[in-house]
Amino acid sequence: MLIVPERDIADLMTRDAAFDAVERVFAAMAAGDAYNFPVVREAIGHEEALYGFKGGFDQSGLTLGLKAGGYWPNNLEKRGIINHQSTIFLFDPDTGKVKAMIGGNLLTALRTAAASSVSIKHLARPDAKVIGMIGAGHQATFQLRAALEQRNFEKVIGWNYHPDMLPNIEKIATEAGVPFEAVELEGMRQADVIISITSAFAPSLMADHVAPGTHVACMGTDTKGKQEVEAALLAKAAVFTDEVAQSITIGEAQHAVAQGLIAEADVAQLGAVINGTDAGRTSEDQITLFDGTGVGLQDLAVAAAVVDLAVEQGIAIEVDF
Amino acid sequence: MLIVPERDIADLMTRDAAFDAVERVFAAMAAGDAYNFPVVREAIGHEEALYGFKGGFDQSGLTLGLKAGGYWPNNLEKRGIINHQSTIFLFDPDTGKVKAMIGGNLLTALRTAAASSVSIKHLARPDAKVIGMIGAGHQATFQLRAALEQRNFEKVIGWNYHPDMLPNIEKIATEAGVPFEAVELEGMRQADVIISITSAFAPSLMADHVAPGTHVACMGTDTKGKQEVEAALLAKAAVFTDEVAQSITIGEAQHAVAQGLIAEADVAQLGAVINGTDAGRTSEDQITLFDGTGVGLQDLAVAAAVVDLAVEQGIAIEVDF
Repeated sequence: MLIVPERDIADLMTRDAAFDAVERVFAAMAAGDAYNFPVVREAIGHEEALYGFKGGFDQSGLTLGLKAGGYWPNNLEKRGIINHQSTIFLFDPDTGKVKAMIGGNLLTALRTAAASSVSIKHLARPDAKVIGMIGAGHQATFQLRAALEQRNFEKVIGWNYHPDMLPNIEKIATEAGVPFEAVELEGMRQADVIISITSAFAPSLMADHVAPGTHVACMGTDTKGKQEVEAALLAKAAVFTDEVAQSITIGEAQHAVAQGLIAEADVAQLGAVINGTDAGRTSEDQITLFDGTGVGLQDLAVAAAVVDLAVEQGIAIEVDF
Repeated sequence: MLIVPERDIADLMTRDAAFDAVERVFAAMAAGDAYNFPVVREAIGHEEALYGFKGGFDQSGLTLGLKAGGYWPNNLEKRGIINHQSTIFLFDPDTGKVKAMIGGNLLTALRTAAASSVSIKHLARPDAKVIGMIGAGHQATFQLRAALEQRNFEKVIGWNYHPDMLPNIEKIATEAGVPFEAVELEGMRQADVIISITSAFAPSLMADHVAPGTHVACMGTDTKGKQEVEAALLAKAAVFTDEVAQSITIGEAQHAVAQGLIAEADVAQLGAVINGTDAGRTSEDQITLFDGTGVGLQDLAVAAAVVDLAVEQGIAIEVDF
C-alpha cells in the first residue's frame, strides 16, 4: 500500500487537480455513479473532540474509502498543531484491501475551496467582476485564492464578524493583483459572486444584501443549527448543492426547508449542471446559490488524485502491508 | 505512525492477549467508559461487496479508531485471497492524529473467539466437561481452540449443516487431546457449553436440545434476519451480550424480542458480570446464553494489544506521517 504524508501534500497537490477531481466526482454523484455513506460524527467526551468518518464509493472512478478524523479544539493552544485533523484511507474496490493512506488536513481545505470554485465556473455570470467574501479565517483564504481563478475579477470586497481578520483575505487579493475593500454587509450588493465561509449560527448575509444576477456560495454550514444567510435568500434563488440530502438537513438549505420557503425538489445537484442535465443559471438576473455541505467523496477524489501525483513523482512511500 | 501488517499478526498475537483485551473492553463498556459508534455497512454495488466501518472509543484504555473493510464474496475464487478483508486504524484521542494501522483479518477471528471464551469463563459451570459446536467453518476452529482453554473439557461434540466439514473442528479437538464425536442436534443435550457459529437464517438449535445448566454462546448472528437458535431458548435462559442495542436489533436476541418472549431489560451486559455488578449465573441448573454480536471496540482492543507487542518485539514498521 501507498502512503502520502501530510507534509508532501502542499508540494504535490495543485488547485487545478483539486478542481478537476471535485468537478468529476460531483458529476459522478449526479449521474448516480457515486454515492456517500451515512456520516458518523461523535462527540467522544475527551478533549472536547468531534471525531468521525465520511465514506463513499465512486464506481466510475473506482474510488472507495473514507476520511477519518475531526476537530480537536485544544490542539493549537495546547500542542501547536491545527485543530482539524484528518486522514484519508483508500481501499481497492475489487478486493477490499487497503490501498493508500493520505494526510487529509490540507486536502480538506483544497477540496472545500474547489467546491465553491466549481460552482462559480458553472453558475456565476461569465462577466462577473466583483467577488465578496463573508468570513476571513484560514478556510476563507483557500476559498478566495481558488475563486479568483474562475473569472476575471477586478475587485475583492470583504466583511467579517471580526474586522481585524480581514487582512488575511486582503493579502490573497493583493497577491493576485486585485484591489481589496472592506465593506459593510450592505456593500455586498456590488458583488457578482459572494462566498460565505463562517461557522455562524445566525445569518449575516440577508436577502436584500444580494443584487440580482449574483452567485452566492454558502460554504460554512455543515451542522444542524448553523446558518450563514437569511432563509428568504434561498427562496429568491435557484439553489444547487453537492448532496441534496445533506443540504436540506445539515446544510444552508435546512432553514428555508424547515420554514417551508422551499421544498426538497427546489434543491438541484451541481453535478447535474456539470453533466448538462440541469440548465443551471437561466438568466442574467437570476440569483444562483450553491449550498456546499462537504461530502466524503470530495475527500476521496482529491486523495486519489494526490496518490497518482505522488506515484508519478516517485515520492509515495510504499509499505508491504 | 506505526504499521503492523497482516502477515505479522499470527506470530505476534496470542489467544491470551486477545482474551485479556476483549475482557477488559467489555468491562469498560459496561462501566460506561467505552462505547461503540453507529455502524456503517454498505452494499456498494461492485463485486457484491459489503463494506463499512465499525468505530468506537475506550476512554479507560484511550483507544480510538475504527475497523474498515468488509466481505468480498468473490475474492477466494477469483483471486485466491480470503473474502473477509479488514484493516484497523487507531487514532490518538489527545490530538486526532492517526497512530497505527493494523491488518484486521486474523484479529477479527481472534477477537470473535475471545468473546465467546470470555463468556465461558464468566458464565459456564466450573465443572463443564462436554463442549458442543454448531458450525464447522473457519471461524468455528478459532472458537473451539480458544474455548478449550477455559474449562477442563473431556469431549467435543459437533454438528454442522454440511457434515463433511466436521473434520475441521475434529482436528482442533484432536490437537488439544480431546476426543471428538459428531452428533445430531438432539445429541447437544449432553453438552455443558455450546458454541453456535453459523451464518444461518433459521434456527438449528432448539430449546429442547439444551440441557439445564448449559452455557450457550451464539456467535453467528450479526444481521437482521439471521438466526441460530430457537427464540424460545432465550426465554428460558439468562441472556447476556456484548452490546444490548445490537443484541436486540441485529443479534440473536432480535427474534425473542420481536416475538415478545423477552424484553430489552432481560438482556444484560457480559461486562457487568466481569465488573461484578451483575451476578451472572445464579444456579447450577440455569441456562446462560451469550449473544455475541461483535463490536468495533473488540477490534480496537486487540489491535492496540498487537501494536504494543509489535513495539516490544521491535517489528512495528514506523512511518513518519
